[in-house]
Amino acid sequence: MLRNRPLTVATALLVTLGTIGIGVATAQQPSVGEQAVKYRKALYQVIVWDVAPLGAMAQDKMPFDAKDFARRAEHVAYLTPLLADAYPAESRGVTDTKLKPEMWTNRADFDQKMQALVDRSAALSAAAKTGDEAKMKAAFFEMGNACKDCHDKYRNK
Amino acid sequence: MLRNRPLTVATALLVTLGTIGIGVATAQQPSVGEQAVKYRKALYQVIVWDVAPLGAMAQDKMPFDAKDFARRAEHVAYLTPLLADAYPAESRGVTDTKLKPEMWTNRADFDQKMQALVDRSAALSAAAKTGDEAKMKAAFFEMGNACKDCHDKYRNK
Repeated sequence: MLRNRPLTVATALLVTLGTIGIGVATAQQPSVGEQAVKYRKALYQVIVWDVAPLGAMAQDKMPFDAKDFARRAEHVAYLTPLLADAYPAESRGVTDTKLKPEMWTNRADFDQKMQALVDRSAALSAAAKTGDEAKMKAAFFEMGNACKDCHDKYRNK
Repeated sequence: MLRNRPLTVATALLVTLGTIGIGVATAQQPSVGEQAVKYRKALYQVIVWDVAPLGAMAQDKMPFDAKDFARRAEHVAYLTPLLADAYPAESRGVTDTKLKPEMWTNRADFDQKMQALVDRSAALSAAAKTGDEAKMKAAFFEMGNACKDCHDKYRNK
């Protein structure tokens, strides 16, 4: 069942878009892999929307607001686990991505780095619930390092 | 404070991207409005990733899987409230969007339609927790209608 699911995603998209009032040209149906890459990019974009002000607050480039920080940290902690769906095997051949191909031969290492991001974003959100500014900022930099570790190794500039 | 926050988002992005290992050309700094539109599009893309298979399952175009349905419904219920941040006043003049300009003179109606989406995606996720296939499918169509109501009025084809 899980194995077959990605193969039906592209079709599911077309079936559903009409239902929610979005017209599409059926000739342009993207492949499963292309759709996963689109999802991946969109998901990172959504995550950055919250990570950017968190980083600016952590670096004192923007006024620190504990409540806003906590709200955004909670979003990030929810969103990072969704990345697990964003790198299916079907997306391996897709070239319109900054992902370095060596990820596919180092999958276990990549997954470990991804898990570090998930763990540290959970820790960031937990720290934010304490309201302790120093802890919150430190937890942001811990998470930022998890981002950077993976970008340095698996993301083209 | 809230009033000033959007003005600092564009700067926050630049400040943070270096920290997480993403290089950017500073000359290309997008405006606050442009960034919000990017966020908006990305957020819808992320939502559609789950809505598409939900719709296909609801329409019997894909095998119904109660567990996968519930997992995806929960994502959608979490994500739709985030759309509240995606239409700031600064994005009014941005043209690279399918949003019809009349939204800006019908904001209360738009916000009401958006709230209907939030409410119905919460109801969808609640229905999915019951495991009752008929209720889950019905709740999907209720939510789909909320999507369509707003798309029909405020989204260019």
